[in-house]
Amino acid sequence: MKLNIALLAGDGIGPEVIDQAVKVSDAVAKKFNHEIVWTSALTGAAAIDAVGEPYPDSTHEVCMKADAVLFGAIGHPRFDNDPKATVRPEQGLLKMRKKLGLFANVRPTFTFPSLIDNSPLKRERIEGTDLIILRELTGGIYFGERGRKDNGDTAFDTCTYTRAEIQRLAKLGFEMAMTRSKKLCCVDKANVLETSRLWRETVQDMEKDFPEVTVSYEFVDAVAMRLVQWPNSYDVLITENLFGDILTDEASVISGSMGLMPSASIGIHTSLFEPIHGSYPQAAGKDIANPLATVLSAAMMFEDAFGLKEEAELIRSVVNKSLAEGIVTEDLSGKNKAYKTSEVGDWLAKNI
Amino acid sequence: MKLNIALLAGDGIGPEVIDQAVKVSDAVAKKFNHEIVWTSALTGAAAIDAVGEPYPDSTHEVCMKADAVLFGAIGHPRFDNDPKATVRPEQGLLKMRKKLGLFANVRPTFTFPSLIDNSPLKRERIEGTDLIILRELTGGIYFGERGRKDNGDTAFDTCTYTRAEIQRLAKLGFEMAMTRSKKLCCVDKANVLETSRLWRETVQDMEKDFPEVTVSYEFVDAVAMRLVQWPNSYDVLITENLFGDILTDEASVISGSMGLMPSASIGIHTSLFEPIHGSYPQAAGKDIANPLATVLSAAMMFEDAFGLKEEAELIRSVVNKSLAEGIVTEDLSGKNKAYKTSEVGDWLAKNI
Ligand SMILES: CC(C)[C@H](C(=O)O)[C@@H](O)C(=O)O
Ligand SMILES: CC(C)[C@H](C(=O)O)[C@@H](O)C(=O)O
Repeated sequence: MKLNIALLAGDGIGPEVIDQAVKVSDAVAKKFNHEIVWTSALTGAAAIDAVGEPYPDSTHEVCMKADAVLFGAIGHPRFDNDPKATVRPEQGLLKMRKKLGLFANVRPTFTFPSLIDNSPLKRERIEGTDLIILRELTGGIYFGERGRKDNGDTAFDTCTYTRAEIQRLAKLGFEMAMTRSKKLCCVDKANVLETSRLWRETVQDMEKDFPEVTVSYEFVDAVAMRLVQWPNSYDVLITENLFGDILTDEASVISGSMGLMPSASIGIHTSLFEPIHGSYPQAAGKDIANPLATVLSAAMMFEDAFGLKEEAELIRSVVNKSLAEGIVTEDLSGKNKAYKTSEVGDWLAKNI
Repeated sequence: MKLNIALLAGDGIGPEVIDQAVKVSDAVAKKFNHEIVWTSALTGAAAIDAVGEPYPDSTHEVCMKADAVLFGAIGHPRFDNDPKATVRPEQGLLKMRKKLGLFANVRPTFTFPSLIDNSPLKRERIEGTDLIILRELTGGIYFGERGRKDNGDTAFDTCTYTRAEIQRLAKLGFEMAMTRSKKLCCVDKANVLETSRLWRETVQDMEKDFPEVTVSYEFVDAVAMRLVQWPNSYDVLITENLFGDILTDEASVISGSMGLMPSASIGIHTSLFEPIHGSYPQAAGKDIANPLATVLSAAMMFEDAFGLKEEAELIRSVVNKSLAEGIVTEDLSGKNKAYKTSEVGDWLAKNI
C-alpha cells in the first residue's frame, strides 16, 4: 500500500519526536511492504520565522494532498506573554483545524500498568481507566466573532454551535460507544448556556437512533470533579471545543502516562495524528523528550487512517516492550539509565 | 454586636445543613454576647414552587437589608434534563449574584490532616495544599447575550468583560496575595480568546501597583493539569467566571475534604457565604448530609463580614475537634459510627 503522509514537525521538541515516529513508521512499512511518501511542511513559530505565517498556504496544499497528517507540536514562549502579538503559532493550529475540517479530536486516556505509580492519583482510583474524550474542534468560542469595544476597554468572544455541527460530532460518539461499553456521556453547561442546551437537545433527539447506547448528561464542572475522583467510571465523553480543551488536558495527567498519550483529529478532508503534549520549549534540541506519544500517534494513524490494524498493534507492542525493558527517556527512567530521544527511536525501529 | 443575617436555605440538603450552621452560630453569639437576627427567605426550586420565581423580589429585599447572607444550596434534578424548562433554580442563583453585585467568589482549598487519606490523590501530592481561587462571578459568558437563530438550529452565547470588572477582581487577588505568599496566578486562555487577552493586559498593567507580588500567567488547560499534579504549588489564582466554575470544582476534590469546603462571595451590597457542595437531592430529608462545610462558611462569615476573628477561630477549632473525635456523618465515618446531620450540629453547638 502507498501511504501519502504530510509531516508537520512544528516547534520545540516537535522535530525530535517526529523523527522517531518516522523511523518507526518506516520500519513498519518495510516489514509489511508498504511505501510511505513523507512530505514535510512548515508550521507554527517555525513557519512564522520562515514565511511570516503559522499555517502557510503551501503547507495547507501538502496536507490536502496527503492521506493523513502526522503532527509534532507548536507554540513558542516568546508569543505567550505578549497580549498584543498579532501573529501567533496557535493561530496556525486553529486555521489548520478549520481549513482541513478537523471537526473531532479523539483523545484516549488509558493506563500502562508499568507506569501507574507515576500517576498523582492513587492506584485504586485509576486502575482500569480507559476513556475517550471526543472534543468538537472547529466550532464554539474558538471560532466565533470576537473583538474590542469602548476604545479597547471591553472585549468579547462569541460561542456558536449549529445543530448540524453537534450531530456530526455526536454521531461519532454514539458509534464509538457502540464498539465499546455502550455508555456515552454528554458534557455541557446546559444550566447556563444556550449552546449547551442545543447540545443536550440534539443529543437527546439522537438517542432513538442508537437505542443500545445509554446516554448520561453531566455538567462540565461535575465532570471536572469526577474525572479526578473516578476516572474509570467513564467510557466515551463528547463535548464542545473549550470544555474539551480543559477536560482532555485534565484527563491526560490522571493516568501517569501523559508523555505517552496520542490523539487523532478526524476531518472532512484528511485526518491528523499528534501527541497531546505541547512543544515543551525548555527541552528542545536536547534529545531528551519522550517520543512515545508521537510513536503511538503514528500507530493510531496506521489503524484509523489506513485501516492497518496489525501494523498499529505491532507498534504498540514494541512500545510496551520498551517500557518493560526500561528503554525510556529521563521522564520515565527514575533511578535507572535514561535513554536519549533518538536512542529510544532507534531501539523501537530495530525491534519492529 | 448585632448581626443581621439573611438565611437562604434553598433546596435538597440545604435546609438541613443550614439548620446546623444556625445552631452553631447562635451558640457562638451567646458566648460572645452578640445578637443575631436571622431572616429566612425563599430561593431556588423551593421558591419556584411557592411563588413561581427562583429569586423573588421579597428575597432580594431581605438580602439587601442584611449585613450578610448565609446560603445553603439550590438545584433540583427535575429541571436538569429538560432543556426546554423556562424557569430554573439556577437562574435564581445568577440573578442573586448579579443583583447583589457578588463579583468575587472566594474558594479556599486546604487539607485537614485527618482527612488527607480520603483524597483521590496521593498524600505527598496534596500535603500542604492551601490555595485560594478567586472566581469572577458577575460577568463573562454567564451574563452575556445568548439566544437562537435559524429556527432554533443555531445557538449562541457571548462572553464579555470590561477592564473595570477585571481590575475589581484582580485587585482583591493582589491584596490577598500580599497577605499570603505574594504569588498570584492569572488563569486565562489568552492564546485564543480576546476577553482573556484583556484579562492578561489588565493584570499586567496592575503589576506595578503591587511590586512585591510575583504574577504568573497560565492557560486554563495547563492549570487544569497542574491542579491535579501539584496543587500545593499554587497560592492565589484569579480567573473569569466559567473557568472559575470548572477549576474551583476540580480543586474541591483534590483535598479529600470536599464536604468541608466553605466559600464566600464578596459583593457590592452584601456578602454571601455558602458551602461549595450542591443540593445533593438524593440525600435530602434523610438527616445524613455533612453540615461541616456550611458551619465553616458561617465561620468565614463571622471573620470576613463582621471582623469577628476569635469567633471564627472557635468554630474552626470545634470542627477540628469533631473530626478528631469522629463526630462525623456517614461520608467521613468510615467503619466507625456515623452521626446524623442534626447530631453533628448539636455536638458542635454544645462544644462551642
Ligand atoms: C494551543 C491551543 C490553541 C490549543 C487549543 O486550545 O485548542 C491547545 O491547547 C490544544 O488543546 O490543542
Ligand atoms: C448552578 C450553576 C449555575 C453554578 C455556576 O455555574 O455558577 C454552580 O455550578 C456554581 O458553581 O455555583
